Amino acid sequence: METSQKQAFKAISLATEKAALMGVDANIAILDTTGYLKAFSRMDNAFLGSIDIALGKAKTAMLFRMNSEAVGQFLAPEAAAYGMVNTSGGLVGFKGGMPVRSAGEIVAYIGVSGGSPDQDFEIARAGSQL
Amino acid sequence: METSQKQAFKAISLATEKAALMGVDANIAILDTTGYLKAFSRMDNAFLGSIDIALGKAKTAMLFRMNSEAVGQFLAPEAAAYGMVNTSGGLVGFKGGMPVRSAGEIVAYIGVSGGSPDQDFEIARAGSQL
Amino acid sequence: METSQKQAFKAISLATEKAALMGVDANIAILDTTGYLKAFSRMDNAFLGSIDIALGKAKTAMLFRMNSEAVGQFLAPEAAAYGMVNTSGGLVGFKGGMPVRSAGEIVAYIGVSGGSPDQDFEIARAGSQL
Amino acid sequence: METSQKQAFKAISLATEKAALMGVDANIAILDTTGYLKAFSRMDNAFLGSIDIALGKAKTAMLFRMNSEAVGQFLAPEAAAYGMVNTSGGLVGFKGGMPVRSAGEIVAYIGVSGGSPDQDFEIARAGSQL
Repeated sequence: METSQKQAFKAISLATEKAALMGVDANIAILDTTGYLKAFSRMDNAFLGSIDIALGKAKTAMLFRMNSEAVGQFLAPEAAAYGMVNTSGGLVGFKGGMPVRSAGEIVAYIGVSGGSPDQDFEIARAGSQL
Repeated sequence: METSQKQAFKAISLATEKAALMGVDANIAILDTTGYLKAFSRMDNAFLGSIDIALGKAKTAMLFRMNSEAVGQFLAPEAAAYGMVNTSGGLVGFKGGMPVRSAGEIVAYIGVSGGSPDQDFEIARAGSQL
Repeated sequence: METSQKQAFKAISLATEKAALMGVDANIAILDTTGYLKAFSRMDNAFLGSIDIALGKAKTAMLFRMNSEAVGQFLAPEAAAYGMVNTSGGLVGFKGGMPVRSAGEIVAYIGVSGGSPDQDFEIARAGSQL
Repeated sequence: METSQKQAFKAISLATEKAALMGVDANIAILDTTGYLKAFSRMDNAFLGSIDIALGKAKTAMLFRMNSEAVGQFLAPEAAAYGMVNTSGGLVGFKGGMPVRSAGEIVAYIGVSGGSPDQDFEIARAGSQL
């Protein structure tokens, strides 16, 4: 399903609102269902290093159609999937990336970085139901 | 000068409005004054190949603090600046990238791709004065 | 629209048949409508250098939803789109890449390399109508 | 020994049949004995992130002429082969990559990704004896 610009900006708006409430300066990336950049927003004062993390979390969620931290289970040393972390240009397997749904269907992927993984998760979740 | 999220989204909004009026499906990238992604929007139906071109035009404008087509003058074969096109990860030297100014000062860079170079220029210009 | 495995192999089969008739050892790549590899076949004795050309032609056609040689018009020196050839990881703008249609709709992209550009075009065309 | 197209497609066909029986949507890559892509098939609904993993497993098996998980023994943290995982553009050292043999001789390498490592192994094994 093609992600619409309207959906992408609604997701960014919901996530930004949540981040502001939580006092977190976040990078928020919206990719379409095949991983192409649809919309992006960096809140003022957000870490520059978090730009790529936000993009990577959303990409990782898209590549396996699950939350980024669920992909992370396969990347843990004890999972022994040596080298998987480097595939597809590099995976990012911790909290903050997930599918965006509308009426139950995946319409996009969101990736958030700027706070702690738990904070990023909460912010992403706020933008994941349209 | 740090680009604010407010400025970035105002630039995207102005450029999007112009693109819609012109009937062009554009990718619009806003980079801060040191080239980091601040905001991005892909209009529905815009070419996927134009995502990277929009980013490249804005980056090229930022790297030399001038319009992307002005940098292009140095990239033309007759300019004999061999290899310059490949520097900084790749320059994109045609119309659609330029500084964004507020009160005369550069506050960001905008890159647009989706229509003809002349159309992209008009759309970028619409977002270049805040 | 998602490309089916059945469609991808039908396209490869049609193109391979044509290549064999023409006496060309071709590489044939099928990408889905957003550029992910769906199927690939290298005929015996085909040039190793043509693997990446076939993939690049299909990707280039996909990125701009047109034949690879149509994108090539923008890459010609006189078009002055300096640096465009390097965007999206590198474009390949000559004959051999095009959309694959079924019932008029684009369902995939095909890229062929191994013969002359005109031969590659004929082979790709043979696989472009399902 | 050069991999023939006929061998490559037989391997893909055998592996696909096994994957279908197991209910796994797999990416299946066949590389020749020097690592060049010979044939590829992505089953419908297979993870996009598994494309690169399938290619990586086959490449890893080829580079050391052994199963990908055997290479993985050298990549485990306790093996202390620091940085080896990043060599040759990135190794992928878990189950799913192995040599393809015909009459006892290695004629190609197969890489499979889409299910669990154990499932990928079974699918690859089905395609590894021609």
